[in-house]
Parts: sequence; structure tokens; C-alpha cells
Amino acid sequence: MTQAAAQVSEIVHVAGPHVAPLLARVEERLLAIAGDSGPVLSEHATGTMTAGGKRLRPLLVVLAAGGSDGAGVVRGAVAVELVHAATLVHDDVLDAAALRRGQPTVVAAGGRDIAVATGDLLFARAFTELLPSGVDAVQALGDAGSALAEGELMQRADAFDPTISVERYLRRCELKTACLFVAACRLGSLEAGAEGGALAPFARDIGLAFQILDDVLDVSGPAERTGKHRGTDLLDGTVTLPFILAREHDGSLEAPAGMTPEQAEVVCDRIAATGALEEARARALELVASAKSSLPGDLPGPQRRALDLVADSVVARYA
Amino acid sequence: MTQAAAQVSEIVHVAGPHVAPLLARVEERLLAIAGDSGPVLSEHATGTMTAGGKRLRPLLVVLAAGGSDGAGVVRGAVAVELVHAATLVHDDVLDAAALRRGQPTVVAAGGRDIAVATGDLLFARAFTELLPSGVDAVQALGDAGSALAEGELMQRADAFDPTISVERYLRRCELKTACLFVAACRLGSLEAGAEGGALAPFARDIGLAFQILDDVLDVSGPAERTGKHRGTDLLDGTVTLPFILAREHDGSLEAPAGMTPEQAEVVCDRIAATGALEEARARALELVASAKSSLPGDLPGPQRRALDLVADSVVARYA
Repeated sequence: MTQAAAQVSEIVHVAGPHVAPLLARVEERLLAIAGDSGPVLSEHATGTMTAGGKRLRPLLVVLAAGGSDGAGVVRGAVAVELVHAATLVHDDVLDAAALRRGQPTVVAAGGRDIAVATGDLLFARAFTELLPSGVDAVQALGDAGSALAEGELMQRADAFDPTISVERYLRRCELKTACLFVAACRLGSLEAGAEGGALAPFARDIGLAFQILDDVLDVSGPAERTGKHRGTDLLDGTVTLPFILAREHDGSLEAPAGMTPEQAEVVCDRIAATGALEEARARALELVASAKSSLPGDLPGPQRRALDLVADSVVARYA
Repeated sequence: MTQAAAQVSEIVHVAGPHVAPLLARVEERLLAIAGDSGPVLSEHATGTMTAGGKRLRPLLVVLAAGGSDGAGVVRGAVAVELVHAATLVHDDVLDAAALRRGQPTVVAAGGRDIAVATGDLLFARAFTELLPSGVDAVQALGDAGSALAEGELMQRADAFDPTISVERYLRRCELKTACLFVAACRLGSLEAGAEGGALAPFARDIGLAFQILDDVLDVSGPAERTGKHRGTDLLDGTVTLPFILAREHDGSLEAPAGMTPEQAEVVCDRIAATGALEEARARALELVASAKSSLPGDLPGPQRRALDLVADSVVARYA
């Protein structure tokens, strides 16, 4: 069992006996949707859906729903994962990525056209899946879908601009990552009959921490990813927190377009030498702590403990 | 005034005095949405929205709504046009097209990344726009969005396969084109308080005729498009009705991958020599006639006459 699988297993155990069957129904439904889209799409969408992934967003829906285990919880969890999958498929088009989660990407297997259409289809299916949950639920998903696209556009607008501020970086992370975490918690809360926004600060903060640590990882290059060049963000012009913080110490730091992978690794080393990775990690840890402390006081014990563990798992990925 | 503008003007006149103000509100709202998406997107989305286009789908929504002129009609018209615009932006990514409606495409102006994200954003906005109209409306749009993506996938799966049947071609046209026409009429009908499907046969048939005639145009090459190579469908492997029908007369006809534009023009000439263009046009005319005769008997006179004119306008584009 991988570390990530062990963590999910612990979270499921802590959250209560209703969670594992719910997650199983989510998997079943994701496969059914992927398989029910004509032969071409089925091949690619099924590949996308079975390639694994942590299912962190569906887990948030299920946990935010408290003890509720109705069809609406499954719909919400399925819908957020479909939007997430659609985003990944489109991101891989942009990056012309060959592999994701160890499997060929849709764009590598089927070409750009298939990948764009597959992403569009997964996105459309997410909305129709969620319809029986009502207008508030679809609104939450629609807002997140818009935010994801806006974040992607912002990233491109800011490409190769070394003067991006921390605030602007965090705003981009909010759009690209945290908003879908917030939507996941909102969808779960709605099913619990709770006010949809109670978990929003929690979801936002772990989403930001998740993205910051992902960006740290791209510079630090953990052992388990040996073989993958560090600095892919630098190469595609994505200015992230480690670079921004490092530049406060070393104003001569640059990451211009057209670097070789070897040059990007040198920039990674210079970033690390400033202590910026530790500073960025510290910010992520603060956000995780803030996330936990923002949980409403009246949450039942199992739900609170499970959400605490989710927050910890965001950090543990990078320990 | 262009011929197309004159036709729309006549349709608006026939349909009644409520139609022109409605269409103006649709334009206003499309621009407001395009402009309300952060500076990067606004530039590209506004360009997409102001580049013209016939606004045929919004017109169908407005006409299907009968005399209704509420906010729901505007929402429906805006939503179908947003989905249509999203599709065009993504199609241009696939084709790496430089111009559309005489303006640089989003992909040409901003690159692939911007274009994929812009399409995603327009798509998400379409759904959130329509939310206040309720679940039936969003379902209609979601089904159409799925169909569009399925049609695109089908087109790629069938690329360069000369044995595609007429039935399979028509099914693809239904997914890629007619389904959004059907959704447009459904959205309008829902606002009129009518049964959503009454205009579906009409919408389906003019959608199919529209696509067939578009495909004929790609082979015949009308005078006003001189300068554009004929046979772009042949070059990207899209097997269309003229080719399928021509091959029934001339079994040696082929359109393999890797042709030059000049070779594609030769294939266009061979298709035309079989009489397949006239056969395809005749099929489209039959569909237009069928569309008109399928209109419910109890439609008010102005609505019926306006819809008849819409059907005629589909043909007139190619006269």
C-alpha cells in the first residue's frame, strides 16, 4: 500500500462506516459515465478515470456531507472529480504531456482533438450529473469551473513575469486549485442540509497549501520523482512562490523563456540556496493550521478528525 | 447590408416588435459576460463575441419562445451562443486556424493555452448563466454540450475512413450541429410555457440541412470565398456527404491522409463530376421542407412565418 493509500484508508476509518461504501459508489458511477459515451470516448475517458489519482476532491464532498449518504453525495463527488479530470485532460493538451499517473495521457494516446473533446465531454457530464441536486449545487460547480479557467488564463498572462507578487500568485492558486476544493465542501455541506459556506475557509486554505507544496516539489524534486527534471514550472514560465520568495533575497534571479532543462535545474538550486523552499513550506504549514482552526466548533468528532487528517495528508505528501 | 443581415432583418420584422429588443439584450449580455472575466480573458472573449456571426441559435431561442420576452429568453439565447462560441474556440485550436469571421482566432492571437481556457470559461459561463431558468433548461444545454463533444470525437474516430455510411454521417451531424439547434428551440419553448420538444423535429432537420450545406460548400467553393482552398474537410480527414454519395458512383474515389491542397481540389472536382453535390443539396432541401411541415399546427402566424424564413435562410446561404 502506498503512503497516500494508507492515509486515505485511515481517513475513511476515522470518518465512519458509511464512507467506504460511498466512495465505492463514486468509483462505480465514474466508470459508468466514462463507459457510456460512445466507443471512442469510452476508451479515453475510461483510461482517464481508471488511471488512479487520490480522489481527494470526492473525499472532501463525502466528508463535508457528514453522515449523509444519499445519492446527492455521490453525485456531488462524481461531479467534482469529472471537472477535475476534464481540467487534467486539457492541461495535458497544453503541456503536450505524455504520461500522467504512469499512464499515457489522452493527448498522447488520441491526439489533441480527442483530448480537447474528451475534456469538454467530461465537463458537460459533470453538470448534467449534478442537475438533480438543484440550482445551488450546479451554481457551486459552475463557479468553480469558471474559476479554473480564469486561473489558467491568469497563469498564461503572467508567464515569464518575474515581478509577480505573492498576492497575485495566491489569487491564481485560489482560482486554479482552491476554488474546486471549496466547491467540493460546499456540495457536501448542501447534502448535509448545512449552510454551504461553513467549510469554505478550511477548503480554501488546504487548497492553497496543496498548490504551494506542489510548487515547492517542482523546485525541490523529491526522491520518488527522480528522473523527472526539476523546474518544469520555470520552463513553461509559471512563476511560483519559491521563485517569488527567492527573488526577495536575490534580486538578480531570473527565469527567462528559452532555458534548457539543465539551466532550469541551476535556477532551482539557486532558489533552494536562498532558503525560499523552507519559507514556502512554512507558509503552507501555516495555511494547514489555519484550515484546521477554521473548522466550525459544532462539527461531530469523527467528521472533524477526518477533516483534520485530510489537512495533514496535504502536508504529508511532501514530508 | 449583407444578404445574411437582410434575412435576419426580415425574420425579425415578421416575428414581431418584441424580437429586436430581445436580440439587443442578448448582445448586451454577451458582451457583459465576455468583459467580466479578468483582463486576459476579456480581451479574447470579447474578440470572440464581437467578431459577428449570424446569431442563428439565439434567434431560434427567441422565436421558439413565441411572444415571451422575459429574462429567461435572454438567458437561453445567451447560453446557447456561449456554448457555440466555446465550441468554435476549441475547434480553432484543433485546426490551428488563423482567422474566423475575418478576425484572428483566439488560438492565433493568444496561443493554444489561452484558447483552451477561453473555451472552457465560455462553456462554464453558459451553464451558470442558465441556472435561474431551472433544471430542465440546464439539462437541455448539458445534453447539447455532451452531444457536441461526442460528435467531435466521432469525427476524429472516423477520420480518413472512406467507408463511413450516410447514416453514420447524419448521426455525426446530429451530434455536432443539430443537437444545439434542438436545445435552442427547447430553451425557447420552455420559456413560452410550452412542451419543450414540440419544435425538436424542426430544429433537428434544419440543423442537419445546415451542416450538409456547409459540407457541400467546402467542396463546391462559392465565389465569395475565393482564395480559400476547397477541400479542407478532405485534408483533415472529415468524410462528408458529398464524398460518401460520390463514392457510390465512383468506387475508386479516395481521400487519403497526407494530400496536398492541390490534390484535395482535384478530389473536389471528381466529387462534383459525379453529381453528388446536387444530390446532397437535394437532401438538404428535403430536410428543410420536412422541417417546415413538422411545425405544430397551432403555432401563431407570425411565429410560423418567422420559423419558415429561418428554414429558408439555411438554404439561401448557399443559393
